[in-house]
Amino acid sequence: MVSHARRKAKGIAAERELVSLFHEHGWVAIRVAASGASRKPAADLIAARLGRVLAVEVKVTRDDAKYVRLEEVDELLSFAEQGGLEAWLAVRFPRGVWRFIPARLASRREKSVRVTREDGLESEVFFEREV
Amino acid sequence: MVSHARRKAKGIAAERELVSLFHEHGWVAIRVAASGASRKPAADLIAARLGRVLAVEVKVTRDDAKYVRLEEVDELLSFAEQGGLEAWLAVRFPRGVWRFIPARLASRREKSVRVTREDGLESEVFFEREV
Repeated sequence: MVSHARRKAKGIAAERELVSLFHEHGWVAIRVAASGASRKPAADLIAARLGRVLAVEVKVTRDDAKYVRLEEVDELLSFAEQGGLEAWLAVRFPRGVWRFIPARLASRREKSVRVTREDGLESEVFFEREV
Repeated sequence: MVSHARRKAKGIAAERELVSLFHEHGWVAIRVAASGASRKPAADLIAARLGRVLAVEVKVTRDDAKYVRLEEVDELLSFAEQGGLEAWLAVRFPRGVWRFIPARLASRREKSVRVTREDGLESEVFFEREV
């Protein structure tokens, strides 16, 4: 069992890694600050390039699949819709492997969406296509 | 002389107040997290509504005018340009009076831009026009 503090630190490290990835590919990107209340903000990252603006939920896993609570995905979708932004999930798998998938296309189950290392786009493809 | 910590707390309080103002008017808005390095991020707030996305630098003053360093304004402008966002300055004057001005239109001096309570748009006008 990984402690809450350790998991949080890993999450922030992954967000920073992803901000750097965006920067390397010519995007601006920022991490969203925790809100004052205990409520989790609806997105972890905002990235933009030439007017395309993405709201990104960032996840980390040591397994082959990551399950993201439907509630969280739906909050991201509604945040993005209200703002007119694109909603994406970005999942970091072991050894720095990232997968990117539009939140709306992620595979829905009863209470979560499931992202595997075969889903969505890998980094190279994502950044080549998403220019 | 106001201490650094006190000034920072006032800055964050103003950012939260502005996030609430955006929310009340149907925008999504988030505070930008401090970057890992000591470097200040290029914007304090990102606000979006129906695809219009603003990068906002937030300032507070107890005086009649606020001077913002040119370097800071230019970083905001270049961040916004790269992302394809609109760059705005939002200055909070005493008694909760906000003024909003596009960063590009703020009055330039040798080392700073100057925003007075007569410059740009007041809250009501800003939120009525900017829909």
